[in-house]
Amino acid sequence: MRHNLHPATPPRLLSYAAVGGAWERQGPLGEKFDYCATDDRFGCATWEEAEAQMSRFALSFALKKAGLNASALDLLAAGDLENQCVASSRGFSPLGIPFLGLFGACSTMIEGLIVATLALGGARELETAAVVTSSHNCAAERQFRTPLEYGAQRTPTAQWTATAAGAVLLGKSGRGPQVTAARIGRIVDGGVTDAANMGAAMAPAAADTLLSFLREEDAMPECILTGDLGREGSDLLCELLAKEGVELRPRHRDGGCLLYDFKTQDVHSGGSGCGCIASVLAADILPRLEAGELSSVLAVGTGALMSPDSLKQGASISGVAHAVRIEK
Amino acid sequence: MRHNLHPATPPRLLSYAAVGGAWERQGPLGEKFDYCATDDRFGCATWEEAEAQMSRFALSFALKKAGLNASALDLLAAGDLENQCVASSRGFSPLGIPFLGLFGACSTMIEGLIVATLALGGARELETAAVVTSSHNCAAERQFRTPLEYGAQRTPTAQWTATAAGAVLLGKSGRGPQVTAARIGRIVDGGVTDAANMGAAMAPAAADTLLSFLREEDAMPECILTGDLGREGSDLLCELLAKEGVELRPRHRDGGCLLYDFKTQDVHSGGSGCGCIASVLAADILPRLEAGELSSVLAVGTGALMSPDSLKQGASISGVAHAVRIEK
Repeated sequence: MRHNLHPATPPRLLSYAAVGGAWERQGPLGEKFDYCATDDRFGCATWEEAEAQMSRFALSFALKKAGLNASALDLLAAGDLENQCVASSRGFSPLGIPFLGLFGACSTMIEGLIVATLALGGARELETAAVVTSSHNCAAERQFRTPLEYGAQRTPTAQWTATAAGAVLLGKSGRGPQVTAARIGRIVDGGVTDAANMGAAMAPAAADTLLSFLREEDAMPECILTGDLGREGSDLLCELLAKEGVELRPRHRDGGCLLYDFKTQDVHSGGSGCGCIASVLAADILPRLEAGELSSVLAVGTGALMSPDSLKQGASISGVAHAVRIEK
Repeated sequence: MRHNLHPATPPRLLSYAAVGGAWERQGPLGEKFDYCATDDRFGCATWEEAEAQMSRFALSFALKKAGLNASALDLLAAGDLENQCVASSRGFSPLGIPFLGLFGACSTMIEGLIVATLALGGARELETAAVVTSSHNCAAERQFRTPLEYGAQRTPTAQWTATAAGAVLLGKSGRGPQVTAARIGRIVDGGVTDAANMGAAMAPAAADTLLSFLREEDAMPECILTGDLGREGSDLLCELLAKEGVELRPRHRDGGCLLYDFKTQDVHSGGSGCGCIASVLAADILPRLEAGELSSVLAVGTGALMSPDSLKQGASISGVAHAVRIEK
């Protein structure tokens, strides 16, 4: 029997921050980011180093908002899409914070919030934890698909890897919103092999985690934020849940659909990447929760578990989805 | 202030298992593995799929020894060296176990034991967790260096990625050894850029974690097992600790030095990979602990945080080391 997890002492969100690139600046949430670059290089020589820089920026903003130094952090859980998660290890190498590396593809922010919640509950020595995740469009494209310079055509179901990073600080005490429940997802493989349709690959995992979570709770969260299914995956998720008698649409939002303006920004099916739901949470959803515009959010991070090599070998793309409920 | 972590209720190790390849079968621990293949393909079409198969085998053996089905597991924490950790996601996709993907390079087994310990302590709903990590020499060589068919020369400081997987099951109750303390390591970068000398890249992180751990504890563990520094990194670690007045050699063992026979197996500086310390723990150290030959072991997992791309870009190889103390 698997269960939703309910922390005995729900941790508090101390602060959060979002950093993005030039394209994210032009999106509907651009003004809400703590910082958006005008040049996606972030002053670095490579896209990969730029992603590391962006992660550091996001953590720095969150620390500043909480009035803390990096030395106050007992734990940093972080991850990204680069091979061997080097954006995180390069980004945080200088800071000297106890570090847990995570890989959950685009679900990594939510995976990190669960790990941090469990860590704060499971060790009396830990008081404060940070979770940071990032993605960079140019680093991801050349790693997973083709370098941007090739000008490859994208299919309508393809998603746009966000150039963004999000950071969330959690503590055992404080006054911020609380993580009151969580569910660790299981891997679900729907047999999708098209890396240009990750929404379809992840929707079954999102449906599995969401239905399992809702069955064990009495109240429906006011907002259900998935990230990042895009338009294609969001439609599929809503269809899958409708079949089970759950009408999701009125309360459903998707990070990949919130980050860009579909009318003016050609992102096809929407945003994706470890930085997408992370930055949407930090720039938009959590501030609205704190301001009282929302009372409870179920954030469902969805990840497509694949590599360029597994795709070439014909392996299907598994999905995983983790959920945390955050309440004011 | 960072601290060693001491679980309020130390989790028990319920069972453990090690699976290896043909080369590991010929090593000093070959007889102690639960299973070693005669063909490193494990009946699969690719090395990558073989690694996934090996991970599944290791978990199956551990479950069998504990008398459990996969459905009894509340959590599976797993990771490997393949890009985006696909050996783990391919391996465990069919099992339906709540899944946390980790990346800590060769430290991943110890990182996983820490995450599982924190999870069991932090959520009353979790009773049983598994940690599985793996590496495959042929998959790793073609990903990080060159395909085996190229016959590339290796330098004396190079380590041999083990074709091995280890699985450990933990529970809140039981009669096995206990995880009584842990320390999450911080990233330490000594400026090493030579991917054929990962022992040197990881030794400073191992020294940092080990010294920090020992300073906070009264008793010295009977055995200190690092993994995987190889001969080069082990020498450096002992030198670094000697400078701080700690004589490590009498009680120090390294997974990379235990897995192969230096006289008959040409592994240069020793073994490495996520499966190395995992299989050495499961095949050798934990059985000796359970048999009473050892009373306490401090297992220090060391990881080299780098990717083929970060190396090409001239980035230095950061190290991280996590520690768990396991007592009978």
